[in-house]
Amino acid sequence: MSITDEVQAAKQAHPDHPVHSLVTKRWSPYGFSDRPVAPEDLRSLFEAARWAPSSFNEQPWSWIVATKDDAPAFARLLSCLADGNQVWARHAPALALGLVRERLRRNDKPNAAAEHDLGLAAGNLLLEATARDLVVHQMIGILPERARELYALPAGVHALTGYAIGYLGDGAGLPERVRDRDRAARTRRPLAESVFGERWGDPAHLVR
Amino acid sequence: MSITDEVQAAKQAHPDHPVHSLVTKRWSPYGFSDRPVAPEDLRSLFEAARWAPSSFNEQPWSWIVATKDDAPAFARLLSCLADGNQVWARHAPALALGLVRERLRRNDKPNAAAEHDLGLAAGNLLLEATARDLVVHQMIGILPERARELYALPAGVHALTGYAIGYLGDGAGLPERVRDRDRAARTRRPLAESVFGERWGDPAHLVR
Repeated sequence: MSITDEVQAAKQAHPDHPVHSLVTKRWSPYGFSDRPVAPEDLRSLFEAARWAPSSFNEQPWSWIVATKDDAPAFARLLSCLADGNQVWARHAPALALGLVRERLRRNDKPNAAAEHDLGLAAGNLLLEATARDLVVHQMIGILPERARELYALPAGVHALTGYAIGYLGDGAGLPERVRDRDRAARTRRPLAESVFGERWGDPAHLVR
Repeated sequence: MSITDEVQAAKQAHPDHPVHSLVTKRWSPYGFSDRPVAPEDLRSLFEAARWAPSSFNEQPWSWIVATKDDAPAFARLLSCLADGNQVWARHAPALALGLVRERLRRNDKPNAAAEHDLGLAAGNLLLEATARDLVVHQMIGILPERARELYALPAGVHALTGYAIGYLGDGAGLPERVRDRDRAARTRRPLAESVFGERWGDPAHLVR
C-alpha cells in the first residue's frame, strides 16, 4: 500500500449504523498532492453545491475560487486564510472562500438560515468531491475583513469559510505536528449524546 | 406512472455540469405518504449526520426527534413549527428539530461555524435519506422559544431548523396552494452568479 492508501484506510469512518460509502469515505486531510484539479471537476463541485436546498430558495451562498495555475490569484486567496491554515493549504491546488448574503432578497429581512444554508451547499460540494476521489478541507480560520477588502465584498455579504480542494497527498512538505493529524483516528460523540427525545440531553428511544 | 413518479420526474434537477445522482434526485416535498420510517432508517440518517465534518471537530449539532407512532411526542414537536409549516408537516411520519451549541466546548468562545456546521450535518442526513428513497423537507420557520421551553434547552443551545422526514406522497390532504408547490419546476441561479474570481460579482474563469 502507498502511504496515501494507508492513510485513507486509517481515516475510514466506522459507523455504529450503516451509512452510504460517500459518508464513511470522506475526511478532511492536511496533506495534499500537487496534482491539479481539472476545471470540469471543479465546475461539478460548485454545480452540486448550487442544487442544495435553501430557505425560501434564497441560495444565500457565493464563492471566490482560485487555482494554482494562476499564481497571483492563488496567493491573493491564500492570504485570506489564517496563518496556521496557510501552512498546509498552500499545497492544495485549489482554494475557495465561502460567503453568505445576510439578508433575504425578497424583503431585505435578516436570513436566519444564511450560514446554515452555506453549510448545506458545502455538504453537496463534499459529496461530489468524494465521489470524484477529491478531498476538501474546510476552515473557519479565515480573515473576513481581508477578503472584504481584496474582493470588494458588498455590504451585507461576508466571508465565513475557506476550502482547500485537491487530491490526498502524503504531507511530505508539512511540519510533523500538522502531518501527524492525518494519522489520528477519526472520532465522534455517540449518537445518544446528540439525538434526544423527551428533553434535551435525554437520548431518544431510537438511539438508546 | 403514479402521481408520485410523475412528481419525482418533474423535480429531477437538470444540472449544467455533471453531478452525482444523489444531488439531482433530492428535493424538498410538501406531500408526504403516511408510510412510517423504520427506526433503523432513522438511525442511519442521524448516523450519517454524525460523521459530518465540523470546525475543531466540535460537532455543535444536536436534534430532538419524534415519530408519529408516539402521538403525544409528535404533537409536541409539531407545535414547535410555524403554523404555515404545521399544515403540511403534520402528514410526515417523523419530525425533528436541529439545534446548535453556540460556544466551543474547548474554551467557551463563540463558535462562528456552529450554524454552518449544523448545515453540513444536515447535508449528510439528506444524502443518506436520498440514498434510502426517503425525502426530507427542512424548515427555518420554527418557534425556537417554544422549543426551549418544551425541551428544556440549556443556555447556549438554540433550535434553528425543523425537519419533516418520510416518503413522497401525492399531497392529497394538503390545501391546493401548498400541493401545487410540488408541481413547480426547481430553479437555481446560474453558476456564474455565485462563483467569482477577481472580485465578488465577477464570474470566475472556471464558470464563464
